Amino acid sequence: MLDKSRLNKLVDILIEKNVDGCLMGPSHDVEYLAGIKPFSDERFRGFYVLSDGRWFFICPELYYEEVRGALGEEAHIYVWSDGEGVLGCFEKAKADYSLDGKSLAINEGVRAIDLIDMSEYMKCRYINGDAIFEELRIKKSEEEAKLMAEAGRIADRTFEGVIKFIKPGVSEKEIANKIKELLIEFGGEELSFEPIVASGPNSSKPHYNDDKRIIEEQDIIVLDFGCRYKGYCSDTSRTVFVGEPTEEQKKVYEICLRATTEAKKAVREGIAAEEVDKVARDIITKEGYGQYFINRTGHGIGMAVHEAPYIKHGNKQILETGMCFSVEPGIYIPGKFGMRIEDIVMVDGDKARVFNNSNRDMVIL
Amino acid sequence: MLDKSRLNKLVDILIEKNVDGCLMGPSHDVEYLAGIKPFSDERFRGFYVLSDGRWFFICPELYYEEVRGALGEEAHIYVWSDGEGVLGCFEKAKADYSLDGKSLAINEGVRAIDLIDMSEYMKCRYINGDAIFEELRIKKSEEEAKLMAEAGRIADRTFEGVIKFIKPGVSEKEIANKIKELLIEFGGEELSFEPIVASGPNSSKPHYNDDKRIIEEQDIIVLDFGCRYKGYCSDTSRTVFVGEPTEEQKKVYEICLRATTEAKKAVREGIAAEEVDKVARDIITKEGYGQYFINRTGHGIGMAVHEAPYIKHGNKQILETGMCFSVEPGIYIPGKFGMRIEDIVMVDGDKARVFNNSNRDMVIL
Repeated sequence: MLDKSRLNKLVDILIEKNVDGCLMGPSHDVEYLAGIKPFSDERFRGFYVLSDGRWFFICPELYYEEVRGALGEEAHIYVWSDGEGVLGCFEKAKADYSLDGKSLAINEGVRAIDLIDMSEYMKCRYINGDAIFEELRIKKSEEEAKLMAEAGRIADRTFEGVIKFIKPGVSEKEIANKIKELLIEFGGEELSFEPIVASGPNSSKPHYNDDKRIIEEQDIIVLDFGCRYKGYCSDTSRTVFVGEPTEEQKKVYEICLRATTEAKKAVREGIAAEEVDKVARDIITKEGYGQYFINRTGHGIGMAVHEAPYIKHGNKQILETGMCFSVEPGIYIPGKFGMRIEDIVMVDGDKARVFNNSNRDMVIL
Repeated sequence: MLDKSRLNKLVDILIEKNVDGCLMGPSHDVEYLAGIKPFSDERFRGFYVLSDGRWFFICPELYYEEVRGALGEEAHIYVWSDGEGVLGCFEKAKADYSLDGKSLAINEGVRAIDLIDMSEYMKCRYINGDAIFEELRIKKSEEEAKLMAEAGRIADRTFEGVIKFIKPGVSEKEIANKIKELLIEFGGEELSFEPIVASGPNSSKPHYNDDKRIIEEQDIIVLDFGCRYKGYCSDTSRTVFVGEPTEEQKKVYEICLRATTEAKKAVREGIAAEEVDKVARDIITKEGYGQYFINRTGHGIGMAVHEAPYIKHGNKQILETGMCFSVEPGIYIPGKFGMRIEDIVMVDGDKARVFNNSNRDMVIL
């Protein structure tokens, strides 16, 4: 169902940003406003909201029943068939809503090729709408926070379960499959992303997704995974060891853990996002591993597994209660090994509420 | 690894289409050319290929090691960090390759918001590159066909397995989870899409994905699922019955099955894609259900679960040996029920090679 108060919030943001309207492709923005899950394919679907409060939807015939059900009887829906194609709908909507010359903010769910086709028919001034849609969803309510917490608990239980399964001879892929199975078994409704199981030298690739390697003695394994619970995501990483780690590995683990712990302690409302990054980065840099901390400290999370606020150098966005994000500083030494420990937190007044609490001590299997 | 012969094929297509270059975002096009899987997030990544044979990549620091590994030492890679952002890379690449004023074909992996940002720095003439990338991947080799066939066999075994699990009281979601489990157990490396389990009145929504309903006596259930095997997709649908179907349901099932069967028999090289659609549509229309056949007869499939050729009215594309697509005519009566039977086929001279062979008789559970 269309959530009228959330729709009004979007209209207020459009007015505040002085934009005439916006277009959302399949995305969590549409899920947030109308409960329509972001199944995306090559058929164009768009939810247009104008700053005067009017709105309409362009929808392939195939999805009409669902979209009508979600938006209600009063909704204005342009429907196109596979045979006719979508272009006629662009033309009609342009005329009906006098869109030529208007500014239209685009969300991340719209494909560039659809924008190219659309701009032949709607001569709008298209702008990147990231800031608008970030503002719409960035602060979580208590109800949303509860769902985030439950998604986190499912991930924590999955970590405790999967480490019993890891041993030399098992493949990265088998571990990933076990993680998937446990996330669903413990109540996740789907994965929030394909699990990352990066072992041995693969651990130095933060988003490794090849999955072919077989676990060996003395491996480091980075596990990174999460699920969706009632629409909200979890995302946690732990680094485990098969057999006794080297002295250097122990040292790097201690630095990573300290960076995560201290960055979480720094979280409070009123500071800039980059300040949290700085806490983690200073610790790692002071220890001489700064060049190997190649990513940002964290990313926002909610209905999307990556959303605002981004916890990175240069982001002066002020943290407010209800903002949720990952804290995941890491050290990645190419060809050698990598590590990270990642928890999701929510800004809650002068502290962080932490949604992951599985074991962070060094786990040696 | 970069496949030089596939890259040369792309360059030849660019020349043939009289385009100066192309940009591919994370997508199966990049997977096809360089083996880089299409993990997509908010960080811009782009593979640019020019019609003079030069090419370069823009890559976030986080993915550098993987991209370098895939493209080799000679590759020109622009790297950007989370702190700096990508815009500087657009500016440098524009200057290094004199891109201003050039025509650049965009693939489906590029987001509209990235195109908006990029076009501030690269004043190219951006065009929808669908036709170019379709041509690149549309005809499968024998080696690719083998992988498609195996993906199909895994899906067939999954169907035979999951029907033992379906009974009144089980939820759509539990059935979907069982399908996921079996697809992986039987050798699928991942899902090709989230399984569709649409029961009772939900069956009239072709792409239903809500999953909450509990199976009841006298339900119709549409199952639609597939996996990826060594990069290639399967996708099959079957409609099953809990308890004895009504006379109308039996009649509709017979029509759907006949439409699928006859459309597959019509497949051969040299005819237009729309002719296959017409065979199925004529059967359903003649029986008086034409208004309820709201989608196209099929979609191409390969590395992507939906790709060219699209089997629909108006598509005059000539079928050639090696093209793979679904045949899935359906009848969807809103608020009442829906059905389809879907197989993947490959054009093989004067006939279709069929990649799905699970039971198509009426299954009554």
